[in-house]
Amino acid sequence: MKKVVTGVDIGGTNTVFGLVDTTGKVIAEGHLKTTDYPVARDFVKALGSGIRKLMADKKNIELMGVGIGAPDANFHRGTIEHAPNLAWKGIVPLADLVKNEIKVPVVVTNDANAAAMGEMIFGGAKNMKDFIVLTLGTGLGSGIVVDGKMVYGHTGFAGEVGHMVVVPGGRVCGCGRQGCLEAYASASGLVRTVSLMISEMREESILRDIPPSKLTSKQIAEAAAKNDPVAVKAMQYTAEMLGFGIVNSIVFTSPEAIFLFGGLAQAGEMLFAPVRKYLEKYNYVLFKKTVKILPSGISESNGAVLGAAALILNELS
Amino acid sequence: MKKVVTGVDIGGTNTVFGLVDTTGKVIAEGHLKTTDYPVARDFVKALGSGIRKLMADKKNIELMGVGIGAPDANFHRGTIEHAPNLAWKGIVPLADLVKNEIKVPVVVTNDANAAAMGEMIFGGAKNMKDFIVLTLGTGLGSGIVVDGKMVYGHTGFAGEVGHMVVVPGGRVCGCGRQGCLEAYASASGLVRTVSLMISEMREESILRDIPPSKLTSKQIAEAAAKNDPVAVKAMQYTAEMLGFGIVNSIVFTSPEAIFLFGGLAQAGEMLFAPVRKYLEKYNYVLFKKTVKILPSGISESNGAVLGAAALILNELS
Repeated sequence: MKKVVTGVDIGGTNTVFGLVDTTGKVIAEGHLKTTDYPVARDFVKALGSGIRKLMADKKNIELMGVGIGAPDANFHRGTIEHAPNLAWKGIVPLADLVKNEIKVPVVVTNDANAAAMGEMIFGGAKNMKDFIVLTLGTGLGSGIVVDGKMVYGHTGFAGEVGHMVVVPGGRVCGCGRQGCLEAYASASGLVRTVSLMISEMREESILRDIPPSKLTSKQIAEAAAKNDPVAVKAMQYTAEMLGFGIVNSIVFTSPEAIFLFGGLAQAGEMLFAPVRKYLEKYNYVLFKKTVKILPSGISESNGAVLGAAALILNELS
Repeated sequence: MKKVVTGVDIGGTNTVFGLVDTTGKVIAEGHLKTTDYPVARDFVKALGSGIRKLMADKKNIELMGVGIGAPDANFHRGTIEHAPNLAWKGIVPLADLVKNEIKVPVVVTNDANAAAMGEMIFGGAKNMKDFIVLTLGTGLGSGIVVDGKMVYGHTGFAGEVGHMVVVPGGRVCGCGRQGCLEAYASASGLVRTVSLMISEMREESILRDIPPSKLTSKQIAEAAAKNDPVAVKAMQYTAEMLGFGIVNSIVFTSPEAIFLFGGLAQAGEMLFAPVRKYLEKYNYVLFKKTVKILPSGISESNGAVLGAAALILNELS
């Protein structure tokens, strides 16, 4: 019998799940449309059927457990709580529901923590004890690992680096406060920064021809690669804000590395080089030259499923 | 045989050490003048004699180990490194030197981490897994505990919350950068804030009659208690900066409590009340009402020795 786990990545629109072996190979994958299930119990039934179907197609495999990455998920309680991007309102006891459906151990955490678990078990942090993963998507998520263990904190919600306030009185954030790091150092933050640069600069730019509501971080990165002056300046500013947030994160847990994951990290050296330069200059003296800024060692395409699989593998081991 | 440990608190001027039993009772105490020993080996010899003398005065006790809190101390390496406030330059292998002298296990960490250990073993954090201790003295030190374990990080220097930058381009800090939390939320930060308030306000104040170089946080707290307008405003500003730093700390490790320790914390409710108010208003939504702001449960007088004793007790257990 080959031992496998299921990694589940629940997103606002789509859910991806896969059977993953202990070496991190995804041996089968399935999909659900999250929005097709306005009731959580119906979603869990469909997920159960989906997993059983994947299992039936393979021979001689044994399911050890299920790991789930989901928005606003609480590791301690196994719940999804008041997720604004899901139809399931209030507190959903997801781990218990899935456990009842599939009869194996189930753990739940948010997607950034799952990404950090993936990095530790299968990715670039295999030999590290202290590191942070920053997921630079629409928002800025984070997973913090200290001494080989994920930091969940008293509430189970620890690791919200995106909601460190970096500009008091600054940009309005989705959380209702102002000046959070994620309002600057994320794909949506970069788009906002382009509008700021357009307001301040007079140089020509292809970005002036795109409505801000349609603009993507990918378009900005491509424009920056072609030396578009607004895009270059916006990217530089974003990298500096990210560098500032990283310097302020390092003083807490003194990590060996910061991994950058997600859409904005695809900008590559255009983002990484100025972040590293910022750290060389502004990192606190005790931590100078002690922190690597690295791209994720997990492929973007199945990173979320692998992370969720790593979460349960780590729990079972 | 009664089992005891020695807790040692090395300060720039004085060193205090004591025999501490497993319940946290200091059963004997000794002192050294740190500045009498420009060579670290001589200091260690004197410390060894001092501890042996304390032991000889008691009957039927067995020394299990030595815990040391010292500035710029590295837990992983057992060293004091480039401490600007000590005569011992470069890297001092303190744990090894003391181990050779006294032949028992020795651990070393900085004074704020020792304070956090004291809080966990003997103080207000006995039943907590996740908390932060902020020591508000001349500087702002911090000890971060996650899931019952001290956070040392990759370098062994983790937990430098005082060097989180809270005002980009702000006050020059002792570390050479600008705008660190400790330049605002510490005894010396409060003194600097009084000068700022004097520059901005026209109200009469007793503090206008004291040279800034002589002014102490205690004088300011006393003036604030008498409703001196400059002192009240300076205290309020300090509390808000501290609140800001605390709100930004909570997003990392989601602690159950923040303990305030050290000289400035003696200001009591004058400091605690506005800090709590700031948190009510500005804490990130997931952490609202989840964090207590508490005074240290360890008495100021022997807190450092108890903390260092707790450090080695924790290591031995």
